[in-house]
Amino acid sequence: MVYLDNAATTYPKPDCVYDAVDRFNRSSAVNAGRSLYRKAKEATEMIQNTKQELLRLCNAEKDAVAVISPSATIALNQLIHGQKWDSSKNAYVSFYEHNSVMRPLSLARELHGFRICAIPHHREDLSLDPEAAREMFKKQRPDFVVLSAVSNVTGYILPVGEIFAMAKEYGAFTVLDAAQAMGFLPMDFRSLHADAIVFAGHKTLYSTFGAAGFILRNDAPLDVFLSGGNGIRSTVLKMPDTAPEKFEAGSPDTPAIAGLQAALQWIKTVDIYHHEKELMEYLISGLEDIPDVTVYKAPGGMERQGGVVSFNLADLSCSVVGIILNEKHDIAVRTGHHCAPAIHAYLKDMKNNGTVRVSISYFTTKEDIDKLITAVKEIDLEEARRIPPMQTC
Amino acid sequence: MVYLDNAATTYPKPDCVYDAVDRFNRSSAVNAGRSLYRKAKEATEMIQNTKQELLRLCNAEKDAVAVISPSATIALNQLIHGQKWDSSKNAYVSFYEHNSVMRPLSLARELHGFRICAIPHHREDLSLDPEAAREMFKKQRPDFVVLSAVSNVTGYILPVGEIFAMAKEYGAFTVLDAAQAMGFLPMDFRSLHADAIVFAGHKTLYSTFGAAGFILRNDAPLDVFLSGGNGIRSTVLKMPDTAPEKFEAGSPDTPAIAGLQAALQWIKTVDIYHHEKELMEYLISGLEDIPDVTVYKAPGGMERQGGVVSFNLADLSCSVVGIILNEKHDIAVRTGHHCAPAIHAYLKDMKNNGTVRVSISYFTTKEDIDKLITAVKEIDLEEARRIPPMQTC
Repeated sequence: MVYLDNAATTYPKPDCVYDAVDRFNRSSAVNAGRSLYRKAKEATEMIQNTKQELLRLCNAEKDAVAVISPSATIALNQLIHGQKWDSSKNAYVSFYEHNSVMRPLSLARELHGFRICAIPHHREDLSLDPEAAREMFKKQRPDFVVLSAVSNVTGYILPVGEIFAMAKEYGAFTVLDAAQAMGFLPMDFRSLHADAIVFAGHKTLYSTFGAAGFILRNDAPLDVFLSGGNGIRSTVLKMPDTAPEKFEAGSPDTPAIAGLQAALQWIKTVDIYHHEKELMEYLISGLEDIPDVTVYKAPGGMERQGGVVSFNLADLSCSVVGIILNEKHDIAVRTGHHCAPAIHAYLKDMKNNGTVRVSISYFTTKEDIDKLITAVKEIDLEEARRIPPMQTC
Repeated sequence: MVYLDNAATTYPKPDCVYDAVDRFNRSSAVNAGRSLYRKAKEATEMIQNTKQELLRLCNAEKDAVAVISPSATIALNQLIHGQKWDSSKNAYVSFYEHNSVMRPLSLARELHGFRICAIPHHREDLSLDPEAAREMFKKQRPDFVVLSAVSNVTGYILPVGEIFAMAKEYGAFTVLDAAQAMGFLPMDFRSLHADAIVFAGHKTLYSTFGAAGFILRNDAPLDVFLSGGNGIRSTVLKMPDTAPEKFEAGSPDTPAIAGLQAALQWIKTVDIYHHEKELMEYLISGLEDIPDVTVYKAPGGMERQGGVVSFNLADLSCSVVGIILNEKHDIAVRTGHHCAPAIHAYLKDMKNNGTVRVSISYFTTKEDIDKLITAVKEIDLEEARRIPPMQTC
């Protein structure tokens, strides 16, 4: 299989991650943070070390704590529903946001009646427009801003630091969804002006499912959304007052966290950023050379391009391209709307029912890209039009 | 290590579980439910099969669906916060409940102002009193009842079916917290009269962390609490209307679910129930023979005893007993309040700061129990009183 669906989950992971998860499962997977015995203490210590590494990765040791959640989706639910919403509030998003943001935010709006506003963008290239955002903030003060670090559809690296800095002048709570970024993009907590950075261990951090969470600025105001036992003051019916404990309920997934720890060590030893940048340039130029291909890439050139890009072939349903790539060539791409509800109106991909998304990782090779390009070139449009499209999601 | 903290998490797991998780991680851990390519489809199918096995385990194939959540704590948050609360409502719990129930329920009460009532119990043996509950229901109609299948402190198997059946006469939503039971206690969905049964893959189901959830009666009324992308109708800002999809947001933890599938197969090949019953009887009689030991066991005898029991030694802080067992004998038990806030007032264990909890699994042996009994017998009270207690949780 040529795997080009790394934005869904990076695959494969480095061997050290598999080894760490397996070793921890077999030899140490007790319940951390609750007991006095040796293995429980070792597991607790391992979690602390992993959190320190996460803080180090975005230069946030002095300013923030790391909260572990089972998934980035759950972390975003915690951050969105943990706000003090009321009908006077304004939440800002970009039209690049994922349903892990848009669905909880819409649900919160249903419950509390606030406004969801879109950060303005330039029509011609779909880049965000910080100057227009500044004007908009003056009229409708931002209380909450959530932005993706990297679009999971076009790979656009959003100008988040600039927009968050403006929003911070109004005291907004700022959330960076770095599911497609942490581990890939260098990050500096202070210059991002984020109250929280959400990460997904199983995506650009090259670990397995089960360990995700958020970096939370010290004293960022956030209410409890998820609660439960955590081994701290069991006879009190409230979660503890201080982060990260305040936001961590239930048994931690120790083997997944051990995998994340191994991944964080591995990330230091490789140059993911330049590997992906180089491959993406090669991929995009290859796609652009194919007649009838429309490429949906980042505005602003390679400087702004992450490890994701989308395309369509003529008027074909994206699903048909996905089916041909899978069945004829064993190439795995994702087709459809990629859980990003708003962007497609702007990409004008309705006739294609979404896009074919190609997403790479450190383990993607030039040969993988060559196979994809050759396969797309070989697609016979007449023949392809006779394949019934599948429902895309 | 003699591991007797199986109520925190069973350890070890059967080898087939470790093997399944590792194999799936290395060869198939793509993102399920979102894509057309072969491995994604295989992962989706594996999840479907696991859910069928879960339904089969409690004889619920015709009446319910299985929802996968990352942890039992998150499942309980979904079930508690997914109710239509208002200040007129009455929620019933037993005093055996865990903080994974009590904390979200208390938080929901803070937000919506309903009442939390305790199911009455017999003072003399701490067994629940269904007849008194019937009378109480007449005066304060039950809208929501949540009960543990097995107490995680004394191992008491609660008379849940009887109480749920009465509550159902008032149309209450009934939740069984089977974190300490599913896989150990035989269960029949219909005779339990539960709307939902919560399970924790990593406890009595002998799988790893990361796959838990709830069995939900078809058409049981439950609102969305957690939302996000799930590969279904991405352009719609709401979760789908039908279960289980309605309650599953974010990437499923496919390797953990593969581990659960292997565990469910393994469970069919062994007799966990009788193994644990026999060992518990041996353990309890061994503890009761030691002078100065107080045993906190299930009311109603072995018939009502799960794989958990608690004890204290004279006036010693439970933590001191835990420290001695760990440091001198490498025996792992849990000490403190076990995230169960209400029961300790009734156990009268305040002078001991909680209890020493011993919890067994299919892999616990008679030799393990012998080592524990011998170690407890050897504790010199005078010497032990000089050890500073640790803070227990």
